[in-house]
Amino acid sequence: MRFHTRKWIKPQDLNPNGTLFGGRLLEWIDEEAALYAIIQLENPKTVTKYMSEIDFRSSAREGDIVEIGMDVVKFGTASLTLRCEVRNKMTRESIIAIEKIVMVCLDEHGKPKPHGKTKIEYVKDRLGH
Amino acid sequence: MRFHTRKWIKPQDLNPNGTLFGGRLLEWIDEEAALYAIIQLENPKTVTKYMSEIDFRSSAREGDIVEIGMDVVKFGTASLTLRCEVRNKMTRESIIAIEKIVMVCLDEHGKPKPHGKTKIEYVKDRLGH
Amino acid sequence: MRFHTRKWIKPQDLNPNGTLFGGRLLEWIDEEAALYAIIQLENPKTVTKYMSEIDFRSSAREGDIVEIGMDVVKFGTASLTLRCEVRNKMTRESIIAIEKIVMVCLDEHGKPKPHGKTKIEYVKDRLGH
Amino acid sequence: MRFHTRKWIKPQDLNPNGTLFGGRLLEWIDEEAALYAIIQLENPKTVTKYMSEIDFRSSAREGDIVEIGMDVVKFGTASLTLRCEVRNKMTRESIIAIEKIVMVCLDEHGKPKPHGKTKIEYVKDRLGH
Amino acid sequence: MRFHTRKWIKPQDLNPNGTLFGGRLLEWIDEEAALYAIIQLENPKTVTKYMSEIDFRSSAREGDIVEIGMDVVKFGTASLTLRCEVRNKMTRESIIAIEKIVMVCLDEHGKPKPHGKTKIEYVKDRLGH
Amino acid sequence: MRFHTRKWIKPQDLNPNGTLFGGRLLEWIDEEAALYAIIQLENPKTVTKYMSEIDFRSSAREGDIVEIGMDVVKFGTASLTLRCEVRNKMTRESIIAIEKIVMVCLDEHGKPKPHGKTKIEYVKDRLGH
Repeated sequence: MRFHTRKWIKPQDLNPNGTLFGGRLLEWIDEEAALYAIIQLENPKTVTKYMSEIDFRSSAREGDIVEIGMDVVKFGTASLTLRCEVRNKMTRESIIAIEKIVMVCLDEHGKPKPHGKTKIEYVKDRLGH
Repeated sequence: MRFHTRKWIKPQDLNPNGTLFGGRLLEWIDEEAALYAIIQLENPKTVTKYMSEIDFRSSAREGDIVEIGMDVVKFGTASLTLRCEVRNKMTRESIIAIEKIVMVCLDEHGKPKPHGKTKIEYVKDRLGH
Repeated sequence: MRFHTRKWIKPQDLNPNGTLFGGRLLEWIDEEAALYAIIQLENPKTVTKYMSEIDFRSSAREGDIVEIGMDVVKFGTASLTLRCEVRNKMTRESIIAIEKIVMVCLDEHGKPKPHGKTKIEYVKDRLGH
Repeated sequence: MRFHTRKWIKPQDLNPNGTLFGGRLLEWIDEEAALYAIIQLENPKTVTKYMSEIDFRSSAREGDIVEIGMDVVKFGTASLTLRCEVRNKMTRESIIAIEKIVMVCLDEHGKPKPHGKTKIEYVKDRLGH
Repeated sequence: MRFHTRKWIKPQDLNPNGTLFGGRLLEWIDEEAALYAIIQLENPKTVTKYMSEIDFRSSAREGDIVEIGMDVVKFGTASLTLRCEVRNKMTRESIIAIEKIVMVCLDEHGKPKPHGKTKIEYVKDRLGH
Repeated sequence: MRFHTRKWIKPQDLNPNGTLFGGRLLEWIDEEAALYAIIQLENPKTVTKYMSEIDFRSSAREGDIVEIGMDVVKFGTASLTLRCEVRNKMTRESIIAIEKIVMVCLDEHGKPKPHGKTKIEYVKDRLGH
């Protein structure tokens, strides 16, 4: 699993108990899944269709730095299934994990559209440098 | 299921494809689950522990009004299990559903704490008017 | 008066004195009035035209849950006059009250447009189930 | 009336009809009234107690620049009454006006506290340069 | 230098150390530079092209009021060079200073476009009252 | 230079001309610089002290994915100098570059404090796995 995006937990990310608001964390994960899928499928019209069960393992506090990891589980015909984990950057303690996030590639009418991809690609290879 | 909170979908709630951003929807659900559990358990220190699989059934567009419904599945010793559905207020089309959201009641040290509740209560009954 | 939407007061809703920021509260009320009027008038192009005097009765603190109530005062030809109260969900203490909020229904040129409504309707009756 | 603070209307400030969201405008006004009163009364613990009726005269669109004006109506013992107008910076068209906004100065227990001020002061005079 | 826009530092503007988040301050400055240039050049399509070095002189805390000042350094053919300073409203302590912010006026194709302006103008003179 | 954090440009990140708001971009960079410095210096009380000139090379549009890169220029006694570039993830077009961002490590009184670091470290090495 590759961890890219990092977040610094600020007051606006806290719930009234002073720990990371779960809703903010889910918002961050959904954005990361969307952009990861768009990069892989090369189709900006890619939406979240399904998430498997979510286990809130531990919390995080103001000032903590967290990193969001994504991995590919499976390339479908019009879909991409991802696995996600968020962990504390400094201690590597796991904060949340989702085994399956299914992203679907849509055409201009909003119908599923085959994406023709079968494996992880890197932008540097596409650009040839 | 009772539907209380309503949201009017504004530009800041959209993804770049012009439909409701899934991350915003999850943020709204987590807040509603938290406040519903706090009202029932009468303990402000109540956190989200688990969500079962999430099915994104349909989307919503700018200007749509959505309503968030919550129902109790089970009262545990230190937990409360909720069911959630979000639907379009005008058409009642279902947008998202989550069968189980487990909220846990914590003591001042962050450990699970029995809440002593066994059934849904209404604030008007507690206040005696 | 019916109370629907609920808010959980988070750090981003506070003023620097640690109580609920009045501007946030007014933002919540304006959104609720707009969506309530849109539901009743079945016209998404409905705007706030007037609010009568606003009495900030008491404040609220981080972690408090507030609920926003709306009631119809009068159906005009192109307008709908609402009454609003926000109160603490747990104690029912009144936080703010506005006796008249006038919402106006507009046509595509931004001119007032008769809405043909004369009494409160429920979505379940419109949908016939 | 002096106009100080200016805002550039961005997508996050719009309602779903594409005009300035009234709730955002009220949020801006409440912040400006608060900071104006804090500057005059030299007490950071100053809160909004009352607003007289609000007339939404015209709207504003994305990209418009608006400016917020404040004027003192009256110095009370523990209060300060302000008048507010927001207008389009380029055309001076009036967008909203509020004749009275009553701000109250509080002590550390949240009780009204005399502020001893009777006229508008300028920071440059207080600092003696 | 004229100081117009004022901000009241709220919890959402803080970094996890409890002082004003530098990123928020830069966001405020960029908005003020954009709207100042749009007012002067009378072209809404004006963008930030360059900022000279930024010196974070001192910080600010929750509840502080800051004011943002802008001054014209030079009118170019298609550009406007501004100087900016942000200071504490009550103490006049300087918080940040930027000697040059270059704003460029664009045509509908995104190319630099001569603006024909050579000196500061006031809206009241343009409107003739 | 390592590129970690990615952002998906949403409506709330746009200026009224429909391109990425420069203020939002600067906010993202300041957060990334802060968290990068905190990871390296292992001191959460690290603040932005200086940025060298900023060149806005090209813009970005709604739906674009950008990535933020950081590199170490120099370890000082109490400071860390970083270099930053933001580019379009799909095309690698450079959007903005800042040659020097000086972050300073503070003690509990807000005074510069030696951090004892002289080279880039990886969390996996610190944790010994």
